[in-house]
Amino acid sequence: MVVVMEPGAKPAEVDAVVSVVEAAGGAAFVSRGISRTIVGLVGDLAVFETLNLPALPGVSDVVRISTPYKLVSRQNHPETSTILVGGVPIGPDTITLIAGPCAVETEEQTVAAARMALDAGAVLLRGGAYKPRTSPYAFQGLGEAGLRILATAREETGLPVVTEVVDAHDVPLVAEYADMLQVGTRNAQNFALLQAVGAAGRPVMLKRGLNATIEEWLMAAEYVAQRGNLDIVLCERGIRTFEPSTRNTLDISAVPIVHTLSHLPVIVDPSHAGGRRDLVLPLSRAAIAVGADGVMVDVHPRPEMALCDGPQALVAADLAELSTALTGMGRLLGRPPALAAVPAYRVLTRAAG
Amino acid sequence: MVVVMEPGAKPAEVDAVVSVVEAAGGAAFVSRGISRTIVGLVGDLAVFETLNLPALPGVSDVVRISTPYKLVSRQNHPETSTILVGGVPIGPDTITLIAGPCAVETEEQTVAAARMALDAGAVLLRGGAYKPRTSPYAFQGLGEAGLRILATAREETGLPVVTEVVDAHDVPLVAEYADMLQVGTRNAQNFALLQAVGAAGRPVMLKRGLNATIEEWLMAAEYVAQRGNLDIVLCERGIRTFEPSTRNTLDISAVPIVHTLSHLPVIVDPSHAGGRRDLVLPLSRAAIAVGADGVMVDVHPRPEMALCDGPQALVAADLAELSTALTGMGRLLGRPPALAAVPAYRVLTRAAG
Amino acid sequence: MVVVMEPGAKPAEVDAVVSVVEAAGGAAFVSRGISRTIVGLVGDLAVFETLNLPALPGVSDVVRISTPYKLVSRQNHPETSTILVGGVPIGPDTITLIAGPCAVETEEQTVAAARMALDAGAVLLRGGAYKPRTSPYAFQGLGEAGLRILATAREETGLPVVTEVVDAHDVPLVAEYADMLQVGTRNAQNFALLQAVGAAGRPVMLKRGLNATIEEWLMAAEYVAQRGNLDIVLCERGIRTFEPSTRNTLDISAVPIVHTLSHLPVIVDPSHAGGRRDLVLPLSRAAIAVGADGVMVDVHPRPEMALCDGPQALVAADLAELSTALTGMGRLLGRPPALAAVPAYRVLTRAAG
Amino acid sequence: MVVVMEPGAKPAEVDAVVSVVEAAGGAAFVSRGISRTIVGLVGDLAVFETLNLPALPGVSDVVRISTPYKLVSRQNHPETSTILVGGVPIGPDTITLIAGPCAVETEEQTVAAARMALDAGAVLLRGGAYKPRTSPYAFQGLGEAGLRILATAREETGLPVVTEVVDAHDVPLVAEYADMLQVGTRNAQNFALLQAVGAAGRPVMLKRGLNATIEEWLMAAEYVAQRGNLDIVLCERGIRTFEPSTRNTLDISAVPIVHTLSHLPVIVDPSHAGGRRDLVLPLSRAAIAVGADGVMVDVHPRPEMALCDGPQALVAADLAELSTALTGMGRLLGRPPALAAVPAYRVLTRAAG
Repeated sequence: MVVVMEPGAKPAEVDAVVSVVEAAGGAAFVSRGISRTIVGLVGDLAVFETLNLPALPGVSDVVRISTPYKLVSRQNHPETSTILVGGVPIGPDTITLIAGPCAVETEEQTVAAARMALDAGAVLLRGGAYKPRTSPYAFQGLGEAGLRILATAREETGLPVVTEVVDAHDVPLVAEYADMLQVGTRNAQNFALLQAVGAAGRPVMLKRGLNATIEEWLMAAEYVAQRGNLDIVLCERGIRTFEPSTRNTLDISAVPIVHTLSHLPVIVDPSHAGGRRDLVLPLSRAAIAVGADGVMVDVHPRPEMALCDGPQALVAADLAELSTALTGMGRLLGRPPALAAVPAYRVLTRAAG
Repeated sequence: MVVVMEPGAKPAEVDAVVSVVEAAGGAAFVSRGISRTIVGLVGDLAVFETLNLPALPGVSDVVRISTPYKLVSRQNHPETSTILVGGVPIGPDTITLIAGPCAVETEEQTVAAARMALDAGAVLLRGGAYKPRTSPYAFQGLGEAGLRILATAREETGLPVVTEVVDAHDVPLVAEYADMLQVGTRNAQNFALLQAVGAAGRPVMLKRGLNATIEEWLMAAEYVAQRGNLDIVLCERGIRTFEPSTRNTLDISAVPIVHTLSHLPVIVDPSHAGGRRDLVLPLSRAAIAVGADGVMVDVHPRPEMALCDGPQALVAADLAELSTALTGMGRLLGRPPALAAVPAYRVLTRAAG
Repeated sequence: MVVVMEPGAKPAEVDAVVSVVEAAGGAAFVSRGISRTIVGLVGDLAVFETLNLPALPGVSDVVRISTPYKLVSRQNHPETSTILVGGVPIGPDTITLIAGPCAVETEEQTVAAARMALDAGAVLLRGGAYKPRTSPYAFQGLGEAGLRILATAREETGLPVVTEVVDAHDVPLVAEYADMLQVGTRNAQNFALLQAVGAAGRPVMLKRGLNATIEEWLMAAEYVAQRGNLDIVLCERGIRTFEPSTRNTLDISAVPIVHTLSHLPVIVDPSHAGGRRDLVLPLSRAAIAVGADGVMVDVHPRPEMALCDGPQALVAADLAELSTALTGMGRLLGRPPALAAVPAYRVLTRAAG
Repeated sequence: MVVVMEPGAKPAEVDAVVSVVEAAGGAAFVSRGISRTIVGLVGDLAVFETLNLPALPGVSDVVRISTPYKLVSRQNHPETSTILVGGVPIGPDTITLIAGPCAVETEEQTVAAARMALDAGAVLLRGGAYKPRTSPYAFQGLGEAGLRILATAREETGLPVVTEVVDAHDVPLVAEYADMLQVGTRNAQNFALLQAVGAAGRPVMLKRGLNATIEEWLMAAEYVAQRGNLDIVLCERGIRTFEPSTRNTLDISAVPIVHTLSHLPVIVDPSHAGGRRDLVLPLSRAAIAVGADGVMVDVHPRPEMALCDGPQALVAADLAELSTALTGMGRLLGRPPALAAVPAYRVLTRAAG
């Protein structure tokens, strides 16, 4: 942290800054220039931030120069992590395809979607039993009944399940059924929920808030990590901008930037970013090309009947095309598709199906 | 809702739209133009939204023409509501000044801030015992101990207390101490929390999410109202834009727009919007001039020692100037300051203080 | 400017930074901390910016600490300027009401609008003869014929004329007719145009670009000032955000912030910011309350027939109400309305009219 | 266009809408529903927009359902166009690599950068002789001297030249030297400039404005096309959002969306979007993967000495890696690199160089 004094700051004012910093257990280094004095601080940043240094007389600016996150930072952990979800890897050596219905509606619809996912090479099943919706009059998900349907779909296909939890106090229940807990974009700064999933003993899929800076997103991950859980996968799903032609604006640059700043893997959700079925394939290609560790897409056996986000759901033929494209792209980049944890079981299941 | 067909849509495709709508219990009115056919829908909008009409063959666009909120809408409730908080009104006939520390730190600091507020004419005390913070390493509030301090400050000054709750399962505890429950900007789409405060039997201060459209904000209020609680005050506190010179961009236009759309009162929080002490007075003036029903500001007896948001806190002299300005502005607009619920008690307390 | 070195930067790397800065005529002050070294630079910022210091080995960050504008900065000019437009002041001692049609359509419409403006107490007439339009198929303005109509309206009412110029090479022609040249939001970084109006010998109304930061806006003013013209009035007219319910989001905080940074007067255009007639009065009140030096509004004798921006134009009764509100607000703030330059002439003209 | 009447609109109000539309030469089709009446309009949209229908009594909303651009629309031109620049194609069958220095500084620097570009497989040379800069104190480009240097670099390498023009009245001069005229992001709504380049007889590279919606960008292209020039290439270069870690946010989704709406080719400028050298390669990969018709990148023989945008410039090794990546990606997608117009000349030049 650097304190920039005003041009006419008095020596006593500089001394006051030094005293405050030292009283707080830090060290201060004064550099007197011709027009300004600069004070460099060494010590605990979190403590310095409580000192309200900008309010001290003679202080012009305070500039932070360290990253505010530690556990998820790449600085102390130079290799990208690989996170295992029910035995399926998400990480730098593979490309992981996650697919499933936006919302669990019925057992038939969910199992059909799971089979579509499996047939096309997806290795994790997504699906929402708890749906945060802007309107209280919209379909809110089936709750625990939906979790049971997901468990059935897992049994039928062998695909481990990723599902969202929206309330801290549902975490134990959802963790009983899920292989991975998802925190959605609207809960990106629901700190009670982040701490609860951090303590749940399950890997976490953390979506970026649609107004979150990359730094805020990593701080949210730090909340999870602080509870002892570093099995976190970040998911870029678009940010809110002025452009109306897509539901949100996919911030594709966030993928390589997060890889620079953090050791956590990053995947992309092109379905929610674009909100349009015709964008899912090109955005998925872009995601893998830019270096994402996987993609997560909405599929539905009958999108025109979907209770949630039908316009963005892929059908079986789309999904097969997507899977082929990802395999080709992965080959080019030296990254094979992630394999299922229990391939024999999959074959068996598929034969039975 | 209006379904706009593609220029070359076939009659069978139009018929299909009509069938789907009628099967869902709605009525459809077909208007065939030279180049396009348009189908007007009458019935339950929430049902229509589950039909995924945009995915039907021949459909070019689906346009919603009704408001999606009902209980908080002005359509069925043409007068602006007045909400009472511990006997203090927030509504169209008065201007309500709410002041207090951003965070409750100690009893001394909180009571001193409350006395500053009282002396300057504030009629409600704000103060946070639970602080949602971007960093897990930042001060997170005192929790229940903070609530007890707020109760002491209320006893000392007679000011009813507005305080934030961040987790649905803390609502009963916070409601024991608080006269009004605040839902913060990061929880603007934490639907579990919104429903819990809706059921708590206390008036609710609902801050706008920093990326929430006005419609989304009113939908959040609808979540509260749906649980039977219409004692809601909306609080505009700035949105996130590209402009870096303020913490957020105060969307002053939101005040008259909300007044057009909803019967709920709207106040402004200039402290969090601007993030700068020097902006609090001019932005408060603007808030009242544009028609806000009150303002809520941060005060601190020693801002340079504040554990949270010190750079934006007012000191006693600022607050007196603010109070004078609001009184003058209110006189011009025919709106006197809101009075305390128990003025005699106030006088007594002030004499003793 | 401060150069922050990386934690492990070598002494030779620090020396290299110092050498580069000194070779460019600057002075460098090295402060060695425990974990990092910081180099403070003193000298010509524009030169330092050409050095590409972030690319030097061992450099972690380069932080600018001075303002990049000079002529329009308040630092060397502590009093707010008053700009005279055809004798009418815009500045800190008055509140100036500017009104007129968005576009000049016919002589009848323009003169009628000018009389509406005059009758309501406006002291400057706005009106566009050159209209930058998003669509090449929309009405583009009457050009020189429109300028002649504006001159007629000035003759009829005595109101000096503010009108937009959109092409650098039209500046001499427009300057023949106009009392003040306006640069519109789409041309906020049309540097050739800014330089041309800077050399034209007429006061300039500089609208903020709808995506311009406050700093970029002041840099645009610096382009005008650099050509020797400091008679600049800044006009806040809304920025582009995600909120769809207004045409743009009026950034009301920009007014006091610009007053802190620059000595130039600032007015507000509530008509273009909100894009809705019902917002013009409340936003005008807010503008004056926050400290703006005036407002500029669209009026039209028959808004439903307007060729441009009809939905936001005021009619005569609105304008009278606005004028009354501004007078009341100004009295509260100790700022009377700006008077016309030649009041006798006005009375005469009005009697004749 | 659809006019949505208010729930209680009177028959006379509906009739008035019909009359106004018919008087303007359009046809109106009335659809009376249970709660609302809807009027569909057929005819000239630009005329309808001048009618100010929203201001008519009883009108609730007016919804536009056609695209406002015609010449650049894919509706009447279903195949993507291929634009030839000095014989080099930009279009759906190839991937075109454009490289060069951000600014022309000296002949040595420019020719060196051009040779770097040529050696790495670039087929067009970019370079700025006129530089629009936020600060009037920053390097503004060499002007005509820069154009002569670009001509020399073209002679040395055989690469046709793409260069920016910033003022309508410089267009003839720049067109003498350039093979393609570039309109920059700050001039995206400088309509005089768009019309001038439309009439210049050279292909045009049209960058997206950093606050332009996709529709506004296509409208800007329509301004060029209206002057008879359909040789337009669109260039996505990032939009302004709240995210600070990149210079701008590359809107990768814009590429497939523009391909849906328009027949014009689209390329991506990852250098200006990200503003960081380390992002150029991953963003270029993403651009090609999403379907862009080419990329345009900054190169510099010595980025640390660049007078403009040094932090984002590639060096020779980066460029070779980029070229290899694009070739591999293109092979996967069935799109070979675009070839130079005169390959023999290139070989000759390279041998001589």
